[in-house]
Amino acid sequence: MAKKNAFYAQSGGVTAVINASACGVIETARLHKSEIGKVYAGNNGIIGALREELIDTSKESAKTIAALRHTPSGAFGSCRYKLRSFEENKAEYVRLIDVFQAHNIAYFFYNGGGDSQDTAHKVSQISAKMGHPITCIGIPKTVDNDLPITDNCPGFGSVAKYVAISTREAGLDVASMCASSTKVFILEVMGRHAGWIAAAAGLAKEQENDPPHIILFPEMAFDETKFLKKVKQAVKKHGYCVIVASEGVHYKDGRFLSDTGQRDAFGHAQLGGVAPTLATMVKDKLGYKYHWAVSDYLQRSARHIASATDVEQAYAMGKAAVEFALAGKNGVMTTIVRKPGKTYRWEVGEAKLSDVANVERKMPRSYISRDGFSITDECRAYLQPLIIGEDYPPYKNGLPQYARLKKVLVEKKLKQTFKV
Amino acid sequence: MAKKNAFYAQSGGVTAVINASACGVIETARLHKSEIGKVYAGNNGIIGALREELIDTSKESAKTIAALRHTPSGAFGSCRYKLRSFEENKAEYVRLIDVFQAHNIAYFFYNGGGDSQDTAHKVSQISAKMGHPITCIGIPKTVDNDLPITDNCPGFGSVAKYVAISTREAGLDVASMCASSTKVFILEVMGRHAGWIAAAAGLAKEQENDPPHIILFPEMAFDETKFLKKVKQAVKKHGYCVIVASEGVHYKDGRFLSDTGQRDAFGHAQLGGVAPTLATMVKDKLGYKYHWAVSDYLQRSARHIASATDVEQAYAMGKAAVEFALAGKNGVMTTIVRKPGKTYRWEVGEAKLSDVANVERKMPRSYISRDGFSITDECRAYLQPLIIGEDYPPYKNGLPQYARLKKVLVEKKLKQTFKV
Repeated sequence: MAKKNAFYAQSGGVTAVINASACGVIETARLHKSEIGKVYAGNNGIIGALREELIDTSKESAKTIAALRHTPSGAFGSCRYKLRSFEENKAEYVRLIDVFQAHNIAYFFYNGGGDSQDTAHKVSQISAKMGHPITCIGIPKTVDNDLPITDNCPGFGSVAKYVAISTREAGLDVASMCASSTKVFILEVMGRHAGWIAAAAGLAKEQENDPPHIILFPEMAFDETKFLKKVKQAVKKHGYCVIVASEGVHYKDGRFLSDTGQRDAFGHAQLGGVAPTLATMVKDKLGYKYHWAVSDYLQRSARHIASATDVEQAYAMGKAAVEFALAGKNGVMTTIVRKPGKTYRWEVGEAKLSDVANVERKMPRSYISRDGFSITDECRAYLQPLIIGEDYPPYKNGLPQYARLKKVLVEKKLKQTFKV
Repeated sequence: MAKKNAFYAQSGGVTAVINASACGVIETARLHKSEIGKVYAGNNGIIGALREELIDTSKESAKTIAALRHTPSGAFGSCRYKLRSFEENKAEYVRLIDVFQAHNIAYFFYNGGGDSQDTAHKVSQISAKMGHPITCIGIPKTVDNDLPITDNCPGFGSVAKYVAISTREAGLDVASMCASSTKVFILEVMGRHAGWIAAAAGLAKEQENDPPHIILFPEMAFDETKFLKKVKQAVKKHGYCVIVASEGVHYKDGRFLSDTGQRDAFGHAQLGGVAPTLATMVKDKLGYKYHWAVSDYLQRSARHIASATDVEQAYAMGKAAVEFALAGKNGVMTTIVRKPGKTYRWEVGEAKLSDVANVERKMPRSYISRDGFSITDECRAYLQPLIIGEDYPPYKNGLPQYARLKKVLVEKKLKQTFKV
């Protein structure tokens, strides 16, 4: 029997380092050519598998694959597409298995967040039932850092570094303007249900009076009176106030401060505009001149200032996924395990996909200060190592040079098309 | 008679490299101790002079002063405060001269944009009339790149680099998500009347299909129909559309797409929110899913990714200002002169303050494509050299280490206080 091929797909919102995981998968598979045939990547994630649009990564040079390590976003395309349950839409699973069979694929590496690990888990179970068992290994990825079991999620360290640096830099800007101009600056960051990204801004504070002066977490119900009081205090004490707000900040009744009304494919509300909402509140109630910024995609694609630790871990997760598959493991996700001790050290671990799927890890209460507006030393100790090290991409003409893939599609083998 | 002291002040919106100019001034003055006594810096710009709040830079170590070269924002504080005309408010000028006389100040280095050069010009004229002549040298600074005569303005190259990199990175993000999610991404950048910063995003485009697909300049009246047609075309052709919009985008009748209603001390409208306005337009008329970002202060404080060319020029402008003063020049601003030839080379030049004051340099029409939505090769040739080179700050604990000043104030000598 011919060597089995592997399928790799990127899923959900992309990160500055998800391609480093792809690099880890492909480079490691290339080291094991006697065991793994080709690595096919889904064109736009799992949708590529359903449409039988498989990118033949063997057509990319070693140099291009190596460049994935320093290229942000999803080089093969990602998607927001969640497979429904087997009972609800059996056809999708049948199609997946058909495509995998047609292309002699026996390994499925799924690089994503909680929803994706759920999909990987289902495929692992169903493929066995359907007589074409697929080895399914999850590779963690999410800027939200909300996966359970793994100490942290690849992608988070880099967005954390970006947010901490941006807070420090913008904080210096406001400090220098506040005597006669802007008094309040608000930076809106990602984090729908978990405040990890907002928390990372807290790392910018090295001395007592340093910004940020207020962090707003989705884990803490927003209280306008308390918030405004805190803003006023900060302006009085420091002359200015820097606020970092998670996009998921909401009132006690669950209402988001700003809900655009849009929904994504997973049914999640598309948020945006917390910063201008807060700015208007500050202006109306306190009269301070404000500025606000919304980083949006900039924060999660900022490979130019990625955390070296994050890059290394993202690569290691991809590499380990292939090694796990070759070692006969199945239905697991690679994880980052923090070793005990004062000096930060980590190693690769594993978690059952069934334990990971659809579990969302929020910030522990002990990571948030008593008043709810900053991080504790315990939180700082957790976050600090994740942003260590710079891993600069190569530059040409003043701009980072990112990989450009050929993306050669494998010839289709199935007669039937599949509507996605 | 004792050696004369110098006064240095930062003015207006700060930049990633204005402190590099301060570094140039102070380090150069320290090399000429036989000619220049102390360098006093205005605490929060010119307001510091009026209030007699002078920071004694001689109290800062050589190491701290050197660190200014890699520290963003205005380390001594800046301000948005424009001296009125001599006729309107003579008291301010009298006060300035009083303070300068009291502290034996004979050199005034004013680091700012057009409004500030106007102030420097007035001080130069009036001080002579009042019998205490002050040597006034302007040091250019503005992310808006809108000063005349100088080839470009320190501060611009770094924001240009930041915007070009962010556009490239976020563009990759959208490209990888567009199959099933976000189709349109809008990045709002600074630039009230001149589109230089928005234009810089165009540098991200290396190949025909690369983002940005649309740039909106304040120099071109916004036409909703044309804009939406262009968005639709881009999404059809590329699967997605990346738009970079200047905050100053306005309709033919001059109405800004989004005017917050706030005014700064110079009477300029405080803008913000063009991106969400455009996003809503795209959603309502074309139905595409969107994301938007507003960089605001992040773009002009992003010292972590400053242009090495910009840093070098900012330093050179400060250094030359002191050298000009010592050479007996007065009433001039240091400038950057681009030398002819294919390879980019530049040298220090000078412009009369009277020629610089209150002149705003917009983008020439030849820098904007015929359809008004992108930059021309001529523009690219102008912009390209300005973002060349990386000048990374030192890092500790994963974060850039920026200068912390002691800011020791000189003992006041005047009995009268002055209300600003």
